[in-house]
Parts: sequence; structure tokens; C-alpha cells
Amino acid sequence: MSQEEYKFSENAKELLHTPGGVRDIYGIECARRLRLEEQLHVALRSYGFRDIKTPTFEYFDVFSRERGTVQSSNLFKFFDRGNNTLVLRPDITPSIARCVAKYYREEKEQIRFCYTGSTFVNTPPYKGKLQEVTQLGAELVNDDSSDADAEMVALTIECLLQSGLKEFQLEVGHAGFLQGLIEEAGLEPQEITRLHELIESKNFFGVEELLDSVTISRELKEVFLALPHLLEDFAGNMDFVQKRAKSAKVHKALDRLQKLEEIIRLYGFEQYITIDLSMLSNYSYYTGIIFRAYTYGNGEALASGGRYDGLVGQFGKEASAIGMGIVLDQLMLALERQGLFEQEKLGGILLLYPRQLRQKALQEAARLRKEGKVVQMLRKSSRAGLDQYQEYAKRIEAEQLLYVTQQDIQEL
Amino acid sequence: MSQEEYKFSENAKELLHTPGGVRDIYGIECARRLRLEEQLHVALRSYGFRDIKTPTFEYFDVFSRERGTVQSSNLFKFFDRGNNTLVLRPDITPSIARCVAKYYREEKEQIRFCYTGSTFVNTPPYKGKLQEVTQLGAELVNDDSSDADAEMVALTIECLLQSGLKEFQLEVGHAGFLQGLIEEAGLEPQEITRLHELIESKNFFGVEELLDSVTISRELKEVFLALPHLLEDFAGNMDFVQKRAKSAKVHKALDRLQKLEEIIRLYGFEQYITIDLSMLSNYSYYTGIIFRAYTYGNGEALASGGRYDGLVGQFGKEASAIGMGIVLDQLMLALERQGLFEQEKLGGILLLYPRQLRQKALQEAARLRKEGKVVQMLRKSSRAGLDQYQEYAKRIEAEQLLYVTQQDIQEL
Repeated sequence: MSQEEYKFSENAKELLHTPGGVRDIYGIECARRLRLEEQLHVALRSYGFRDIKTPTFEYFDVFSRERGTVQSSNLFKFFDRGNNTLVLRPDITPSIARCVAKYYREEKEQIRFCYTGSTFVNTPPYKGKLQEVTQLGAELVNDDSSDADAEMVALTIECLLQSGLKEFQLEVGHAGFLQGLIEEAGLEPQEITRLHELIESKNFFGVEELLDSVTISRELKEVFLALPHLLEDFAGNMDFVQKRAKSAKVHKALDRLQKLEEIIRLYGFEQYITIDLSMLSNYSYYTGIIFRAYTYGNGEALASGGRYDGLVGQFGKEASAIGMGIVLDQLMLALERQGLFEQEKLGGILLLYPRQLRQKALQEAARLRKEGKVVQMLRKSSRAGLDQYQEYAKRIEAEQLLYVTQQDIQEL
Repeated sequence: MSQEEYKFSENAKELLHTPGGVRDIYGIECARRLRLEEQLHVALRSYGFRDIKTPTFEYFDVFSRERGTVQSSNLFKFFDRGNNTLVLRPDITPSIARCVAKYYREEKEQIRFCYTGSTFVNTPPYKGKLQEVTQLGAELVNDDSSDADAEMVALTIECLLQSGLKEFQLEVGHAGFLQGLIEEAGLEPQEITRLHELIESKNFFGVEELLDSVTISRELKEVFLALPHLLEDFAGNMDFVQKRAKSAKVHKALDRLQKLEEIIRLYGFEQYITIDLSMLSNYSYYTGIIFRAYTYGNGEALASGGRYDGLVGQFGKEASAIGMGIVLDQLMLALERQGLFEQEKLGGILLLYPRQLRQKALQEAARLRKEGKVVQMLRKSSRAGLDQYQEYAKRIEAEQLLYVTQQDIQEL
């Protein structure tokens, strides 16, 4: 290799890289992924959600702190020609809230939207997180009922079941529950932040230590310390909490969770949910029911959602709303790890023809395609033997190799 | 309105804007668009192209001058945490060329990929161009035959026909034709740039003036000046040019175009193509056949494509290739302007139920969805009359409004 050639191939090698955190998807993975996406999309539409497509980037303000799910330093930012800050959307819900306020200002009844699209987070690459993922989701606006809460939880379960996943749990909580407890405890802002961190990392020794250092009632402290144990027997837990906490917010949250559980039973999906009172909302816009779906082997949630009755109002239209979203990449990972994809070939027919029989081959290809078949045409080189094409057909995982001859069409 | 309220609603109003050049798509437009996208996708797949999904942004180098379709100042650029320049892809072909070189290094036979995705151009907003469009396309690698040329042209025609478009033309040219003429004319770089501009703007008086100022053969000059008239009667034009130009490149280009035309006749698509020898390649990577599809009422091309035998090589694998791409936004615009969309409702069933019949309603919804129906559930408010729901059903363009009662399910 000459120096110049070497330099060229070094350059070419560098050119082959994708930025850390994003990737190419092709082959059977891409085929499965698109099939799954289509399946989920059909499920979302069957619940009456209508498609919406918002821009890949928006003005920074749409995703700023109050509305954001990702901190500013983890957004991909750039500028338009007027020097306004644009961001690659980290989330699609705020964009849909914007659309609802813009295009459905006067509508007081249900508004239903579903979407599929890429979202972006600029995490440090060493964290090994994907920076671009595909999200599918649905948003139900102008319905503050427990029916709506339950519908979004049920829809999430139905989507996961239709994907072929068998074992998963939806952790369901309420953003108002801890908020109410904390308000009742009268903690300082600093203490609240610390408490959130401790609960998030499930460090309940730390929680106990923190609560020892402040003045709160014995009963309330009991509730905080019982949080990790309030998973099974929701009715019993409700009773335990109701006797100890006075906050109306806490009682209201328990009431909503109880109603949700009742309706989920009507759907026949109770085995898929676990009510977790210690659940923290990780999006600042959630105001009511929150949920996250997990399966074994995946640390990250496959799907999540919640009620955000204040978000649309930030865009100028007061409206209740609840949404759910599935991270396609996480679901794919789970299905793959759990061996839930069937063995399959990429398939299709490889139609080989000699130059002089081009017309016959074109007719045959058109006929097969009309039947719904996939046909890849390939002109046979006069120098290559048929065995070479048989090997190629295997490499591309073709279902069938057909060879056009003067007399007929042979299967090789 | 208090001052504070006023300020809030002003802020909210600003929040409603999308950046210039991008837009929200919803309602019937979005439904039609997704249906069209699916239709085109099925067509691409039926020719044996396999799906690939590359990242929305890549390192700048992938789309730099030699490989780019958009000048650097019109790229959306930003930085990763290592201070490398990233760009929102302006085009998907270079990314697929990269993938082919990376994942199919040893493959010598056909490689077929198709894609759907957003591409981005940071044009000044006053130009009124969309900055984000959806492109669908296919790339056929490792096939330098005229069969491959014709297949991509035919596939483009088939896609446009399947979209419902009736009147359109594919202008077909060859990147080597003008290159060959210019080389033979021995023009200086400056003169070449000027000539390109003049031909692009169809200013053939300017071309004549320019050629008068340089020394070239009378025959060659005749060819240049005949360019705008070399549209009909390709056989006659070929003869005219072959007698006057000596360049092997020119003769080769004519030969390729002739073969292409022959094969397109076998597809039965000859009425959709016009061979235009004055066609300039607008992408720097094209080396052979180039084409662009137009219809009346749309200034911009609906689809385009061409042969780019040098591009994959820039990523370290020598390979011939030809591709085609459709700009979904332009095609939608054409179908709409030409009134080719049928009148239709968004559809679906609105299932209204009183709270106490929730269970019955859920069962009915599940049953209908199993039949493939779209069902939007809505709990009736005890304060609202049925007429209000009838109006709502009209607003959302529901096909049917069903009302669950103790006795039965009524159609309202």
C-alpha cells in the first residue's frame, strides 16, 4: 500500500464512523423494527388517536425547564439564521401540547393524537445511552376522568402485549402523592431536593436520617418510611396512609389510584400493574397518575406516561391531558434479549436472467409483484456460474432463486 | 385582562410558533401523507430493496463538499461534546454509501437499500422553502448495467403512478454528456462555471456569447447551441451530436441513454420520459444517468435520482451505484393541487357511555377493535345532552356515533 493509498483508506475509515450514541439499523433488525412500529401504530390508531407530525427541531422555549423532560445541558442546540436557539426535540409531548393550544383552541371535548418520531438527548457518550431513539405515543387531551387514566394505562399494556412481550409490569403512581406528603411535612426546598434524591435511589436509611433532623409528626414519618413497602395490598396501604396523612392532595391521589385500579380490573389487566406510592415523576410536567413499564433484563423503562393537566395551559389553553409513550429501541432490546423474535429470513425472490431474455424477466417480475411478491431482478453475468448466484441468494436470505430461460422459469 | 395575564398570553402566543421552514402536519393531511408513505414504501420493497435507518445527524465530513448535495452554509450544524461538527443530514444517499462501505465491504453482487426519513436544509426563510422534508428512496449498489439504470427510472415512474399522479414527466440526462462536451471544448475553470450557470438558467444567448469568445470547433459550438432543442427525436439528436462531437465521454453518455430508452420501452413507460441532453446534475456525486420528475403546477422536482459510481469509493469501497428519491412533501403538494385526493372523513367510531355502563362499553370497544375498527371511547357527562355529542362527532369527522344504554347500543 502506497503512502497515499494508506492515507486515503485512513480517511475513509474515519468517515465510516457515526457520532457516539447514534447508530445504523439495517438487515433483519430494521425489518423487525419497522414491523413492530407498524403494529404499535395500528394499536394506537384503533383507540381513536389521530396521527400528528411535528418538526424534528423547535425553538428552545418549547422544551425549556418548566416543560422539559431533559435538562438544558443535555439538549442538542443550534441556531437559526436569526440567531434563535433551536433544539432537537427531546420529547414529543410538549410539541403536541403546543399544537393543541394552537389548532384546537376552542375544542372542549376530547382531542386525541398519536405520533412516531425520533427524539434526541445529548448525554455524555461514556454513559452508553442512545442519543437518538424512536418514540411512539398517544396524547388524550380534555379528559380529566379516571376513565382516561385507565385507558392510557390499558393502551400501554395492550401495545406491549401486541409486541409479543409476555412478562412486564407497569409501575403506577401519582405525582401528587409525594408532593402532598412533602407539603404536609413542611420541608425546606433544599430538604425536598435531598429527599427526592434519596427516594429515587431507594435509600430509605437516608430518608430516615433526614426526617430525624426535621420536625414532623410521628404518623407522617411512618408513611415516609413505609414507602418502599407499600407495593402489595393497595387497599391495606391506602388505609395505612389515610389514617396517618391529613393532606387533601394525598387523599385525592389515593382516590385516583383506587379508581384506576378498579377500571383496570374491568380491562382484565390487573396482573400487569403494581401501584408504587414511592414513585417519583421524572418529568416536571406530570400532575396526576404516572406510570412506567419494565421488563426483566432491561434497566430502562420500555414505556411511560402520565397525566399533565398543566402543560397545555403553558401554551395558552387550559386543558387536562394524559399521555403515554413507548421507546421503540428499548422494546426491541427487550424482545431480542428475551428471544421473542421468530427465526426468519429477509425473504423475497431473486430473479436471475440473461441479457437476451430481459423482456421475459420484466414480465415475470411484474406478474409476481402484482401478486404481492418481492422481486429483486439481477442480470446474469456471462462470466459467472449459477452456483455463484446460489451462494449470493443465500447471503441475502432470499426465499427463492428463479432463473429465466428460453423455455421456462426454473427454480434453482 | 390584567397586565400579568396579558403578558402570559403574549408569551404563550410566542411559544406557539414553529421555526420558519418547518411545520406541523395533522388531521386529514397527516392521514393521507402516512398512507402515501406506506404505499410508496410497499412499492420500493416490492423491488427487493431492504430497509435501512441511518442517524438523523452525522459528522460533517459525510456531507462535505465532495459528497454533498447542499453547500456547507446551508447545513444545520452543531457540536457534540468532543467539539466535532455534526450536521442534520441534508440527504440520505451519502449515509447509505457509508453503510455499504462499512457493513458490506466484501459484497460484490447487488446491494439494495430503501429508506424513509427527514432531511434538512438551512435555507434563508424568506425563500419560502421547507427546511425539513420527508424523503423516500432506494439505492442499488454494485450494478453498473443499463438494466439497473432503467430499473431505477422505472421504479420512480411506478411510485408516482401508484401515488395516483397521472401527468408527470421524468427528464432524463447523463452527467457525462456535458462534462464530455466541455472537456472537448477545452474551457478554463472560470468559463466552465459560467457555462453551467448559463445552461442552468437556459440562457442560450449567453451560451452563444461565451462560446464566441473562446476557440472551439464550429461543430462543437453547434452542439452546445442545439442543446435546448435536443428534446424530441432522441435518435435524430444522437446522430446530430455523434457527427459533431469527438469526445468518447459524450459518445458513451449517448450510448447509455439509448440503452436506457430501449429498456424503458420494455417496461412500457416510454411516454413518461423525456431525454434532455442539456440536463445538469445538481448533485456533485452523479457520474452517469440523472433524472428528475416534474408535474404541472410544481416548480420543484417530485423525485430525482442518478448514478453515482464514485461516491461509495470515497468511503473506502469501490462500487457502482444508482439511486432514486422522492420528496414526499412535493408529491403531496402535487396530488393536492391537482385534486387527486378523494373526499374522505377521518372516520372511526365514537363510543359514548354513561359511567355506570363502563364495563359494557369496554367490552363493546374491545369487540369492535378486534374486528379492525377504530373506537374512541368517551364517558358521557351527566350535564351534557346527546346533541352536544352529535355535534362533536361531526367535528371530529367520526363515521358513527354509538351510545351504550342498559338495553342495547344505539346508533345516534
